[in-house]
Amino acid sequence: MIKNITNVRGIKCWGAHTGVKSLRRDLAIIYSEVPASAAAVFTQNQVVAAPVTISRKHIKNGIAQAIVINAGNANAATGKQGMDGAEAMVQTMADELGIKKELVLVASTGVIGEPFPTEEIVNGIKDNVSKLTSKSQAGSFAANAILTTDTFAKEGFIEFEVNGFEVNMGGIAKGSGMIHPNMATMLGFIVTDAAIAPKLLQETVKETVDKTFNMITVDGDTSTNDMVIVLANGMASNPELKTKSDTGYESFRKNLEEMMMHLAKQIVSDGEGASKFIEYEIINAPDEAYARTMIRAISKSSLVKTAMFGRDPNWGRIISAAGNAGLPFNYEKINLYMGSEDKLLPVLEKGSPAEFDRNYMKKLLRESHISIKLDLNNGKATAKGWGTDLTTDYVLFNSVYTT
Amino acid sequence: MIKNITNVRGIKCWGAHTGVKSLRRDLAIIYSEVPASAAAVFTQNQVVAAPVTISRKHIKNGIAQAIVINAGNANAATGKQGMDGAEAMVQTMADELGIKKELVLVASTGVIGEPFPTEEIVNGIKDNVSKLTSKSQAGSFAANAILTTDTFAKEGFIEFEVNGFEVNMGGIAKGSGMIHPNMATMLGFIVTDAAIAPKLLQETVKETVDKTFNMITVDGDTSTNDMVIVLANGMASNPELKTKSDTGYESFRKNLEEMMMHLAKQIVSDGEGASKFIEYEIINAPDEAYARTMIRAISKSSLVKTAMFGRDPNWGRIISAAGNAGLPFNYEKINLYMGSEDKLLPVLEKGSPAEFDRNYMKKLLRESHISIKLDLNNGKATAKGWGTDLTTDYVLFNSVYTT
Repeated sequence: MIKNITNVRGIKCWGAHTGVKSLRRDLAIIYSEVPASAAAVFTQNQVVAAPVTISRKHIKNGIAQAIVINAGNANAATGKQGMDGAEAMVQTMADELGIKKELVLVASTGVIGEPFPTEEIVNGIKDNVSKLTSKSQAGSFAANAILTTDTFAKEGFIEFEVNGFEVNMGGIAKGSGMIHPNMATMLGFIVTDAAIAPKLLQETVKETVDKTFNMITVDGDTSTNDMVIVLANGMASNPELKTKSDTGYESFRKNLEEMMMHLAKQIVSDGEGASKFIEYEIINAPDEAYARTMIRAISKSSLVKTAMFGRDPNWGRIISAAGNAGLPFNYEKINLYMGSEDKLLPVLEKGSPAEFDRNYMKKLLRESHISIKLDLNNGKATAKGWGTDLTTDYVLFNSVYTT
Repeated sequence: MIKNITNVRGIKCWGAHTGVKSLRRDLAIIYSEVPASAAAVFTQNQVVAAPVTISRKHIKNGIAQAIVINAGNANAATGKQGMDGAEAMVQTMADELGIKKELVLVASTGVIGEPFPTEEIVNGIKDNVSKLTSKSQAGSFAANAILTTDTFAKEGFIEFEVNGFEVNMGGIAKGSGMIHPNMATMLGFIVTDAAIAPKLLQETVKETVDKTFNMITVDGDTSTNDMVIVLANGMASNPELKTKSDTGYESFRKNLEEMMMHLAKQIVSDGEGASKFIEYEIINAPDEAYARTMIRAISKSSLVKTAMFGRDPNWGRIISAAGNAGLPFNYEKINLYMGSEDKLLPVLEKGSPAEFDRNYMKKLLRESHISIKLDLNNGKATAKGWGTDLTTDYVLFNSVYTT
């Protein structure tokens, strides 16, 4: 049987249909039997949805016990009515669970600027808290209930050891489906039974999100609702991780990164209108921040993305995009490789065009998973990132008249 | 008769066919009978073409007398061979004109990374310097010779007074045609017979480019070759403008801005694959830099651009893009208007959806020139910017397999 978030000790969840969306599940609830260390990263957009404001406040002390998520309405640009709705979601969860409202986090995804359907959602919470369960099916229900235009549910589960103790970690996510306007939201919820102090968890989550969720791009925009939350309830009984040098910390960090990367890649794979999954790698960079910034500059370039759609090993566009990253960059030192997931051909060697078999390259770039690797010959740091191509379908999907 | 750069006192030019491009003119030369105050703004891309390196060096002392421009090959990522080629262009111009090579500026546009056709271009210069003339036809030849995938030549001419003296100003430009890869270059060359000190000219050109050429976007990328040059040869005999408080300076500045805006808007109008010209205006902003940064964030957003292609007054995408500008932003204070060039309807009032006639809005957004106006209610500064929509044609043009 497939394991999911319900296989984390003490975690119960559910996914239900409240009526906000016409046919699909649209309400997910996640609960830990005991208060958990909690950490989160929120959108950098200056326009934030009501649930972001509330969750930011509630997570400040590093402890949480429940998460409630609705899909179909982003509760963004909804003013006081929306803020009242988000407060009502949190209060209803707290009342039904018999916990303080400060232990409840809230997230929303869907259309921006429509009145928030507070009544349906509050009634949905009241009807469904009693259904919280650790049966496997509930994990799938929750994973499906947070989707908007995603075409498949994104889930992950890992078991690993921390200091000799068996630890479980599960996660669900939704991606940047862009068919319908304003649904660019990326949400990720990860639960684990590891014991880790809130402060160390927050530091670790921030660093790991920077390497994973923050390294994917579908269209370069970030939404008003983006949120990644991690709950660690300690029920694995390992001695609480308090510092990065504690035994077992590196195992925890590595597995959290693996989980986030797994979810992030699934989001890219479901990027709407995309025909290709592109992995970018930079090696021998001056430092990691440099490498990440440059990857983002390349992976969001419309000219690079259209070239990939056209299966064109157009190195001029790649070095021009790299030169636009706002970083010192000397293309004459670089080697550039392109190809499929497992076969790369050199395109530039020390800045000069390399000889390669153009027919073979065309064949490689016809695959759905392609790779671009840039060797800067200017240091020892590396970074990876993931993106999509830019297709005529993307434009058509996103130009549909809806408001 | 239409006036152009040839109507500026002391300016001669020519446009010729050297054979780099198969059918069209591909070499432009511009010459001032006397050395002129010279100012320029160059690409911010870290990868710069050989002509950018040379022109940057030659313009340092603020004096120049000639410009040579080739189209068809960008002379970028061409290594020593390209640098030698650009030096040869400059030396040949200087020899043929009998002036120092430091008085010659050079620009290129075309494909990146192909060997530079030095011989054809040097021969072209030798054959054509003797044809330099102030006959009107030569201005058109020059304007056409700098084009790549542009569908029309961009020219402008204005007469105005500086401190009672009649001054002429003419300009030519080429745009960000993107059908063929790596031809994103934006070039602008403006000549005037006003007398203005090099230092003040440089300061004025920088400020004016920031309000005009730097406020247009077709696809958010800047090229390895972008360059705007202004020559002011003083033959209008006005007392030389030395400071911003000098009589006539404001007239000069205003007319330079008008010329640059005229050329910049023509470039946007010719943005490839674009179906719409979009004017963005922000009013009541804390300061001009804030307003410009926010306009650029909105005008380059793929989600906003596809919505405009789809004639969708999707205010959620606009405020989300504004929120991504990296600036403090409170959408609850804003008024947002959308519509055609001359008829705007309110979409948001103090952050709340406004009532408007949806059928009438659809009709307005069907026009080829549309407008988006954002009132931030947060200061007194204003700014404007210009962009295009993102269309299926853009993607198709830019995905053509060519390398």
